[in-house]
Amino acid sequence: MSRSQLLEFDFADSPNKKVMVPHLTTALSGPLLELEKQVLEAMPRIEHWFRSEWLQHAAPFYGSVDLRNSGFKLAPVDTNLFPGGFNNLNPDFLPLCVQAAMTAVEKICPQTQRLLLVPENHTRNRFYLQNVAALRTILEHAGLEVRIGTLDAAAAQTVEIENGPPLKFEPLRRVGNHVLVDDFDSCVVLLNNDLSAGIPDMLRDLDQAVIPPLHAGWAVRRKSNHFSAYNRVADKFAALVGVDPWLINPYFATCGQINFHERKGEECLAGFIDEMLQDIRKKYAEYDIKEAPFVIVKADAGTYGMGIMSVKDASEVRNLNRKQRNKMSVIKEGQHVTEVIIQEGVHTFETINDAVAEPVVYLIDHFVVGGFYRVHTTRGVDENLNAPGMHFEPLAFETVCTLPDRRAAPRSTPNRFYAYGVIARLAMLAAAMELEDTAEVLDEETQDARVAQS
Amino acid sequence: MSRSQLLEFDFADSPNKKVMVPHLTTALSGPLLELEKQVLEAMPRIEHWFRSEWLQHAAPFYGSVDLRNSGFKLAPVDTNLFPGGFNNLNPDFLPLCVQAAMTAVEKICPQTQRLLLVPENHTRNRFYLQNVAALRTILEHAGLEVRIGTLDAAAAQTVEIENGPPLKFEPLRRVGNHVLVDDFDSCVVLLNNDLSAGIPDMLRDLDQAVIPPLHAGWAVRRKSNHFSAYNRVADKFAALVGVDPWLINPYFATCGQINFHERKGEECLAGFIDEMLQDIRKKYAEYDIKEAPFVIVKADAGTYGMGIMSVKDASEVRNLNRKQRNKMSVIKEGQHVTEVIIQEGVHTFETINDAVAEPVVYLIDHFVVGGFYRVHTTRGVDENLNAPGMHFEPLAFETVCTLPDRRAAPRSTPNRFYAYGVIARLAMLAAAMELEDTAEVLDEETQDARVAQS
Repeated sequence: MSRSQLLEFDFADSPNKKVMVPHLTTALSGPLLELEKQVLEAMPRIEHWFRSEWLQHAAPFYGSVDLRNSGFKLAPVDTNLFPGGFNNLNPDFLPLCVQAAMTAVEKICPQTQRLLLVPENHTRNRFYLQNVAALRTILEHAGLEVRIGTLDAAAAQTVEIENGPPLKFEPLRRVGNHVLVDDFDSCVVLLNNDLSAGIPDMLRDLDQAVIPPLHAGWAVRRKSNHFSAYNRVADKFAALVGVDPWLINPYFATCGQINFHERKGEECLAGFIDEMLQDIRKKYAEYDIKEAPFVIVKADAGTYGMGIMSVKDASEVRNLNRKQRNKMSVIKEGQHVTEVIIQEGVHTFETINDAVAEPVVYLIDHFVVGGFYRVHTTRGVDENLNAPGMHFEPLAFETVCTLPDRRAAPRSTPNRFYAYGVIARLAMLAAAMELEDTAEVLDEETQDARVAQS
Repeated sequence: MSRSQLLEFDFADSPNKKVMVPHLTTALSGPLLELEKQVLEAMPRIEHWFRSEWLQHAAPFYGSVDLRNSGFKLAPVDTNLFPGGFNNLNPDFLPLCVQAAMTAVEKICPQTQRLLLVPENHTRNRFYLQNVAALRTILEHAGLEVRIGTLDAAAAQTVEIENGPPLKFEPLRRVGNHVLVDDFDSCVVLLNNDLSAGIPDMLRDLDQAVIPPLHAGWAVRRKSNHFSAYNRVADKFAALVGVDPWLINPYFATCGQINFHERKGEECLAGFIDEMLQDIRKKYAEYDIKEAPFVIVKADAGTYGMGIMSVKDASEVRNLNRKQRNKMSVIKEGQHVTEVIIQEGVHTFETINDAVAEPVVYLIDHFVVGGFYRVHTTRGVDENLNAPGMHFEPLAFETVCTLPDRRAAPRSTPNRFYAYGVIARLAMLAAAMELEDTAEVLDEETQDARVAQS
């Protein structure tokens, strides 16, 4: 497919205005059209099913889901439980965020009046600062007194931001089994820090409600746990709707004991890559898909798109040069990569102004509250779009994901966005199950530590 | 105050656009400014208090609250549990309605996939038809299969409406302890019929969930029960915020055993009116309010603004002519008025284009989802604005009620609307308590009937 084909906008009809949405470059006529059609038709069954699932599984407080839409496959590729792009959402949907946050607070900590927000330490990133400001706005409008406590005492400062009062980062201090800033004590601590650097002692064994829980951080979390849970969710959903689960679920496998520097585990990696590429080729043949299969190799723990490779042949991981090995072996906060996940690559065939666009859907509790496109002008359709130092333009969703039009074509904008909302909710349901599955990990770790000390 | 002063719009700033809101003709400097200021400052305490109240009292499925804003007093004057103006809400806030309806369904009937909507019988009123269509849209987007079952078999028909598929009114039929249309059986029946004509046998003793419950209909409901509950709510809230409860609560009294035709009960009425006017005068003196006090006399049961009088002197009810007596004695569905509520009149000092405007706030579950102004060109500031045959222009709220700006002036638009949302929620909380208080009425009635029969 040539880039020149991609120079198009779609202007979708909305009751009041024309909205700009990325153009989906594949003519939808294959399996995904079928999927979107089935999803639309099954809407009451789907919503009913979600209701019963959410009765059994508590939704995380918030999250964002990176989706890829290849025209023949629509799948989550990453689920973030400490979302950092609330500033990229359409401000028109702030009321939706506020209402959803009210519901979340009612469920998790109705008795609270105050909330202590613990952000990431990189307070020099102005985009991230805007995210913290956006989160504060949502939480304050949900009726909470919010203060910001930073784990990094050096990051304590007051920062001016656009469109709002300054952000005051105050040093967290521990008093007994509570963390406070100044004299501000709260029953609930909301983490917007993914704990890539490990779980700080400051936050362990608190009597306060910590949301999301500590084991949702990357110190404990593994992508493979998430996608194991997603396998179960996707199978159940696909059976409900009557579609091939592969249409919404990328294959994955893991290799532990990898050491890129010492070239340990390369064969494990190459073997899985080879097998997976074969599996994908079979599916492509089944659906008459002409694209070249690829897989993504990335750290099983961690975020930020560091240590990510796009691979089309197993030989590529056998011949990594020093620079590539360095790149793969370190992720955020200098953590070393020893566990790796190999994930089926999903092409992104959404483009806007000649640039590749990847949708990111935001949820608060189990409500889809908005989303945006990461629009990259310098990346290909089979590359990772969430890489460190990568510039992307956020393009806020101009419509919500909850207003499908069952009388319009499956490919119409409200229906495409409804499908995005459904797949994102599947990923959040998987995250809920993943957090249940891993709830014991920290306890065991603490016990192990105690045993080791005694 | 002359009408010429009222020829003004307020154009309030919003992040993206100028919005048109009615002008509040009194310069806010008196007690209400104080109230709005206190409400703003107490916002986290208020939201916290609402959360704990909603844990104790289940919100009705939906409702609308008529407010009056006199500049010195902001109070609910009527609370409708079968709201009929969803078509008047700003379509931009449909997602808020959908999200709130999802929450309501999760609480009340998570296991349901279908919903049977029972509307009013007046299917020739095109505004009401649009309301039914708007409700259907909200419920369908919340993920339910919706069909419409009419109590009046003669009203069974298919009606074309603008902007949507036809509305099909199907006759309700009873099978055992279920009502169905056709073969469509649902676990839940949503009433949008206020049961002014009494509780039909068709709906009694159903095994289906009936929401709102039958005793929320005017066959059982009394405005005085509602305002008794509101007294308790308003006192609690006023203590929380530190204001005089009178600022948000109109006085009321009741007279039973009235017969306007036979001129029975006139003295009771005149006596209460006189006392209440004196009480209001005292308050007006306390706050240095120069307006003329008035009271509203209306049926204690029933809706639609039939049988409503605005009275400035007790003598007015002693000298009713035949026409006035006729008007007062009959309300909707030909029901005779024997119980009357006398309510302190609250001037409406909001105007738009020289016309009096009365805000109506809509809620689904305990969420404020929008509202509109009833704009009347032919009525005075001390008259009832919800009268039969009265033409009003709906003016949808252009902003939501959940985004106060604590850094802006109390009188700024987002803050005025926040105050409206707070007062409307107080009224809905009173409705929740009222429904608890009256839950036994129908059971007792059924028992009495059984005793009488045996």
